[in-house]
Amino acid sequence: MPDIHAARRARARRKFPLGTDAALITSPANVRYLSGLTSSNAAILLPVTGDGVLATDSRYTGAAQRDSPDLELLVEREVEPALAMLAARRGWRTLAFEAHQMTVERHGELSSLDESLALVPLGRVVEELRMIKDSAELALLAEACAVTCAAVADVLPQIVTGRTERGLAVLLERSMIDHGAESVAFDTIVASGPNGAVPHHSPTQRAFQAGDLITIDCGARCGGYHADMTRTVALGQPAAWQREVYELVAAAQLAGIDAALPGADVVHVDSVARNIIAAAGHGEHFQHGLGHGVGLEVHEAPMIGYGRTGTLHDRVPVTVEPGVYLPGRGGVRIEDTLVVRAGPAGTAVPAQILTTTTKELLVL
Amino acid sequence: MPDIHAARRARARRKFPLGTDAALITSPANVRYLSGLTSSNAAILLPVTGDGVLATDSRYTGAAQRDSPDLELLVEREVEPALAMLAARRGWRTLAFEAHQMTVERHGELSSLDESLALVPLGRVVEELRMIKDSAELALLAEACAVTCAAVADVLPQIVTGRTERGLAVLLERSMIDHGAESVAFDTIVASGPNGAVPHHSPTQRAFQAGDLITIDCGARCGGYHADMTRTVALGQPAAWQREVYELVAAAQLAGIDAALPGADVVHVDSVARNIIAAAGHGEHFQHGLGHGVGLEVHEAPMIGYGRTGTLHDRVPVTVEPGVYLPGRGGVRIEDTLVVRAGPAGTAVPAQILTTTTKELLVL
Repeated sequence: MPDIHAARRARARRKFPLGTDAALITSPANVRYLSGLTSSNAAILLPVTGDGVLATDSRYTGAAQRDSPDLELLVEREVEPALAMLAARRGWRTLAFEAHQMTVERHGELSSLDESLALVPLGRVVEELRMIKDSAELALLAEACAVTCAAVADVLPQIVTGRTERGLAVLLERSMIDHGAESVAFDTIVASGPNGAVPHHSPTQRAFQAGDLITIDCGARCGGYHADMTRTVALGQPAAWQREVYELVAAAQLAGIDAALPGADVVHVDSVARNIIAAAGHGEHFQHGLGHGVGLEVHEAPMIGYGRTGTLHDRVPVTVEPGVYLPGRGGVRIEDTLVVRAGPAGTAVPAQILTTTTKELLVL
Repeated sequence: MPDIHAARRARARRKFPLGTDAALITSPANVRYLSGLTSSNAAILLPVTGDGVLATDSRYTGAAQRDSPDLELLVEREVEPALAMLAARRGWRTLAFEAHQMTVERHGELSSLDESLALVPLGRVVEELRMIKDSAELALLAEACAVTCAAVADVLPQIVTGRTERGLAVLLERSMIDHGAESVAFDTIVASGPNGAVPHHSPTQRAFQAGDLITIDCGARCGGYHADMTRTVALGQPAAWQREVYELVAAAQLAGIDAALPGADVVHVDSVARNIIAAAGHGEHFQHGLGHGVGLEVHEAPMIGYGRTGTLHDRVPVTVEPGVYLPGRGGVRIEDTLVVRAGPAGTAVPAQILTTTTKELLVL
């Protein structure tokens, strides 16, 4: 879809710092967003007026010709120096670069290539554009979320005493592929019993036991877009403390979703959910941020958490994922991927939840 | 295995640039190598004398305590600034950093934290240590290669007319998990018919046809170590040109393996194989490097190719993977993972091939 990518490049150009002759785009997700090409070694030289140049190595020549037919193509192994030299030859002297992505070493190489070149930071111009998704992007994200929910539904009957965390994770990842995922969005988390107290637990050979809470955090990737969902279920009748923590996290999660409105400050959305957990005496047991944007990267702008900056807008997909983690005992996290929406004339309407698996406590 | 990691840290310290008070290690693979911790957000502050400090965020607290019990632990979301401030407080003023890994933006932040700090490039000190593997690392790599070969053996009968590239890739990836891989080492390549002319082809819905050459490039990951193997097979009796190209690539691959001896220059190893292909008139159809190191990363030092620098040593695992790619027609690539070995008193002995699937042309 060259038209989409050309339109994105036009929007990016309008955000260049004053005085920029061209920008060197090197973040792989930003390169894909602006060109359509998926490559581990590609960059775009985008002048403030005129056509851009895409550089990649010979492994990706065919893909670049197919996916980015409207960009001039330069086939080189070292894409950044090749494009910087081209910029110098074309008289584009003030070159904006992605300082949050380029390494110090690479910057030093480019700085010494041609003394007429001035490298200036571009900032997160493309990441900011990427926050607000178009309809095709939202459709891919919705597909990834639907695949994720279908796979979770498939494996719920497999959550039985004796099954291991790792065994369930493998079943779940296969099921996502079966349902049409091109890949998993990230390594699946299955955290049972005391392991549930570790937010980022890697699945082990621990076998499920009656009385466990089991936290499952997974997502499918479709067309480059990443779903992200967490559910916590009980194996056997939960103890009073387990049900209490579950209901607390569920209430905080709903409040966070309700606060995810266009115009909302990300710190406010975080604090709405966090205050509920803190008021119940569990503030110290919820130490990560409330959520994050999702799209071509599984974690992207906007980050929703204490100390973050930013505002939500119509068409911005985010996660809302509070948790309570009790060391040695276990934990609960509940997470949806949702899309912030505005109604007619920019009015606030409830966010559109893409991960539709029930959030009632499932007792298996 | 804290002893192993402490010994690695001691070896790294001896390679610090003169005048360094401490090094800030930020490459995830290097952090894992020196600490045992696998984390997407961790760094090590390693003073030239005395104990190191590992920083990671609260998601990884438990993993760090378990995997790196001999390192002081600092739990912070922003690990690099936290460790740089700690270095300043401890009077470690000349701080070596990984310029090939740290972004320009992060470097700017660290530079402005404390005026007493001087940031100097560390170079690829840890990557160079990582080239030569210990026995435990070689065992994990051998396991990953064995899993890869077992999975390929499993799916060979599934290579039939009508099966799609993507379908075969999914079967193969599942089989690697079934055989004990913790993950795939990289996205599997299945390139059939004309798609075989694209070295880095992503599997599509193209169905295999009689007369196709089919290139399969895949690997399992075990304990963090990455296997990498490519085989090209024929579906139905191959045409004369297909057999000819196959035999040419196979001869070049064997010659490359024969040249992979301790003390060999990487450019020499590349040219031994490349010259065979060029002499047959296909020099322009082999545009990528001959191979690369494998270990905690699927592509790591040493790189074997034109314009690269370095020498092979005992216990260095590398790939040897020549190919011939004919636009519009198809291609052949054959790749092994092997370990360069020295015999008694440093004598050269043949490399140990870890990927043992046959390299005769299989006609399916």
